[in-house]
Amino acid sequence: MKKEIPYKIYLSEEELPRQWYNVRADMNTDHAPILNPKTLKPATVADLEPVFCTELAKQELNTTDKYIDIPEEVRNFYKMYRPAPLVRAYCLEKALGTPAKIYYKFEGNNTSGSHKLNSAIAQAYYAKEQGIKHLTTETGAGQWGTALSMACGYFGIDLTVFMVKCSYEQKPFRKAVMQTYGANVIPSPSMTTNVGKKINEEFPGSTGSLGTAISEAVEVATSQPDTKYVLGSVLNQVLLHQTIIGLEAKTAMLKYDEYPDIVIGCAGGGSNLGGLMAPFMEDKIAGKQAPYFIAVEPASCPSLTKGKFAYDYCDTGKVTPLAKMYTLGSGFIPSSSHSGGLRYHGMSPILSQLYHDGYIDEARAVKQTDVFAAATQFAKVEGILPAPESSHAIKVAIDEALKCKETGEAKTILFGLTGTGYFDLAAYTAFNENRMEDYAPTDEELAKGFSYIPELDI
Amino acid sequence: MKKEIPYKIYLSEEELPRQWYNVRADMNTDHAPILNPKTLKPATVADLEPVFCTELAKQELNTTDKYIDIPEEVRNFYKMYRPAPLVRAYCLEKALGTPAKIYYKFEGNNTSGSHKLNSAIAQAYYAKEQGIKHLTTETGAGQWGTALSMACGYFGIDLTVFMVKCSYEQKPFRKAVMQTYGANVIPSPSMTTNVGKKINEEFPGSTGSLGTAISEAVEVATSQPDTKYVLGSVLNQVLLHQTIIGLEAKTAMLKYDEYPDIVIGCAGGGSNLGGLMAPFMEDKIAGKQAPYFIAVEPASCPSLTKGKFAYDYCDTGKVTPLAKMYTLGSGFIPSSSHSGGLRYHGMSPILSQLYHDGYIDEARAVKQTDVFAAATQFAKVEGILPAPESSHAIKVAIDEALKCKETGEAKTILFGLTGTGYFDLAAYTAFNENRMEDYAPTDEELAKGFSYIPELDI
Repeated sequence: MKKEIPYKIYLSEEELPRQWYNVRADMNTDHAPILNPKTLKPATVADLEPVFCTELAKQELNTTDKYIDIPEEVRNFYKMYRPAPLVRAYCLEKALGTPAKIYYKFEGNNTSGSHKLNSAIAQAYYAKEQGIKHLTTETGAGQWGTALSMACGYFGIDLTVFMVKCSYEQKPFRKAVMQTYGANVIPSPSMTTNVGKKINEEFPGSTGSLGTAISEAVEVATSQPDTKYVLGSVLNQVLLHQTIIGLEAKTAMLKYDEYPDIVIGCAGGGSNLGGLMAPFMEDKIAGKQAPYFIAVEPASCPSLTKGKFAYDYCDTGKVTPLAKMYTLGSGFIPSSSHSGGLRYHGMSPILSQLYHDGYIDEARAVKQTDVFAAATQFAKVEGILPAPESSHAIKVAIDEALKCKETGEAKTILFGLTGTGYFDLAAYTAFNENRMEDYAPTDEELAKGFSYIPELDI
Repeated sequence: MKKEIPYKIYLSEEELPRQWYNVRADMNTDHAPILNPKTLKPATVADLEPVFCTELAKQELNTTDKYIDIPEEVRNFYKMYRPAPLVRAYCLEKALGTPAKIYYKFEGNNTSGSHKLNSAIAQAYYAKEQGIKHLTTETGAGQWGTALSMACGYFGIDLTVFMVKCSYEQKPFRKAVMQTYGANVIPSPSMTTNVGKKINEEFPGSTGSLGTAISEAVEVATSQPDTKYVLGSVLNQVLLHQTIIGLEAKTAMLKYDEYPDIVIGCAGGGSNLGGLMAPFMEDKIAGKQAPYFIAVEPASCPSLTKGKFAYDYCDTGKVTPLAKMYTLGSGFIPSSSHSGGLRYHGMSPILSQLYHDGYIDEARAVKQTDVFAAATQFAKVEGILPAPESSHAIKVAIDEALKCKETGEAKTILFGLTGTGYFDLAAYTAFNENRMEDYAPTDEELAKGFSYIPELDI
């Protein structure tokens, strides 16, 4: 007889994973290397070291070690907010009248409000170990900047966050959280870097972009002593750290003899979905029973469903290495009408390869208003006010549960609830007041953004 | 040998309490009755029924039943966010270098961001059971309004929230959360009630007060069919529901053979501190080993340390029953310079009686800037960004832990971390930018507010 399943499954601290899982070691691929933007040759650790911490550069390129130890200090920090609960959505199931069993892994129970902290604390730790005194990064919506501020505050590392100016002005509370944790938050474009000065001269009154903010952060990292740059998504190292999500989720499900038929996650840079699905993907690669994987992206920024699998820059400013990934082109500027943090032109190279090779079964693009309708429905019955990003996964989880209602199948659905929406209430208000617009780029608009390099189109 | 204590102690769902603890049944007092404001006679259930749900009116007056069953539907809702963790503040202990063991009961892991949900769901449940279709309430800072919106959204009850107009305008995000859960949020004074119209006529441009908002909410509750009024603090019923906090905390500590030497809580209306300490107070009343209890209040609104133990109205508008409590006088208007939700002229009658009778050992008034300094210190090492209210308890917990450092005593300190500060970032910003002011009313200012009725000064 199966054990009765509680509303929330909490693992004990002893069950907190001791290693991250490096899915690349198991993948049936040659792993298209990232390329040095100057030479277009595969990047080495030495190529990455001027910008990144050495240990993180090694993780970025590691395709052979299946497990990587989680340092004890990182694990101790994790204990302040992990293991994160795996929630059985009894109330949502009842509201939908579905025979499906719905689970979600909730990553919002920490002050950053999202899963970003899982990688922030790891990156800050390796920086501290290397004697780095100062980190730089960029932030758009602010989740990553908040997470990194918490991590740097904990380890006593100085942090400079270049925050896209329009966000800096529209989201003063995000800025305030970062400052409370001790970060120096600078609106970008700023007058503190050459790149920033140049943009301010050329485009007076510019409200900034993620591309410019990255360029400013990298400039500071490479021009000051004991300073490195860190990034919160897309990179292989970030997906590696995020596998803690999937490892915990799998352990929690197996404890109750459960296993998902479907795994659903929102996909922006891809690290949260990658982290959630990796330990289940291990089963699929091994040819065992495995879930049906669905990546959910916004119709306004449809890199998997409308993009091309090709080498491209990771940033708009084209200063970062090139990666082979699904991309709308680094020149693609996502519509600002879409809220949330999924507005990235590319996609995690790991996720991209898995999707290209058919291991991720489906990518689905969804409309913003449908996402907020699902978010509101979820909030009322499950209590948690979800982040707009996470709500993309909720939308598809509800759709799949309603399919089960039609067919009578009692499928087990697992989705990632990456965070809370406390700082996204302007978007909720727009939705509540029927002022929210849907947008999807036309084929002509999409064609404009492509900037990958033809000779690398392999 | 003692078991190793994890960072977070989570009880299982089976350990979630099945009954609230009614501390009044154990108290060595005659329980000064609340008085009908028209007759100044002890209020009966019949007196309270026009305003309150019947079951809640009964709980309000219940001084005999030691335990009251938590209804199954309320318990199921609790399971979505409870049992709440008891956290061992290892990182704070280390940062302070104290031999003290510090624990906090964290009530912020839900969308209302505070313990308010514990009573909101109970009150909404009893309303639904009684066939009430519509509830009204007031909210100042917005935590209570948010919690009640969640509860009413869950049970499908209409909710009208009168939100003090200056908060309505300054905190659009609080309003947005409430609306997302389906509440009708009206800035007070409004033009929808007679009281509101009168205030708007007499004081054009009024930005409102809690007193006016209460009066508006009560007017709607008493003038519309199937409508009742609910309140989030001060009342005995609210403290009863909040005992879930202390019951869980005590069970969790005993599981690890721990028992607090000191229990600390912030005190505004008093329901959270009352709920946390009640099961430990049971030990004290019974003459067993018991903690030293400290109530922490803001220097700007010092009802326990500077108030009078006397009969007074619970609201500024003097429409509610009178209660015997520590009060600064219902005419006392707390300085708006103080942030947070502790700006109430009175104090829970239960807490007041216990303090008067010496069961609560100490009340301590603390300055706002000291509170925010403690909040910031806590946030950096423990990760959680605390609410300003909760941070009053943090301030005193740190002070007590530092005393232990001096004396070398390894005391066990338990405090209540009632909520998160995500909606209080304007105050954090003021603190970060050195714009926060301290304020304490002078004796002359305090003398002005007293409005209790001399013939009742017994």
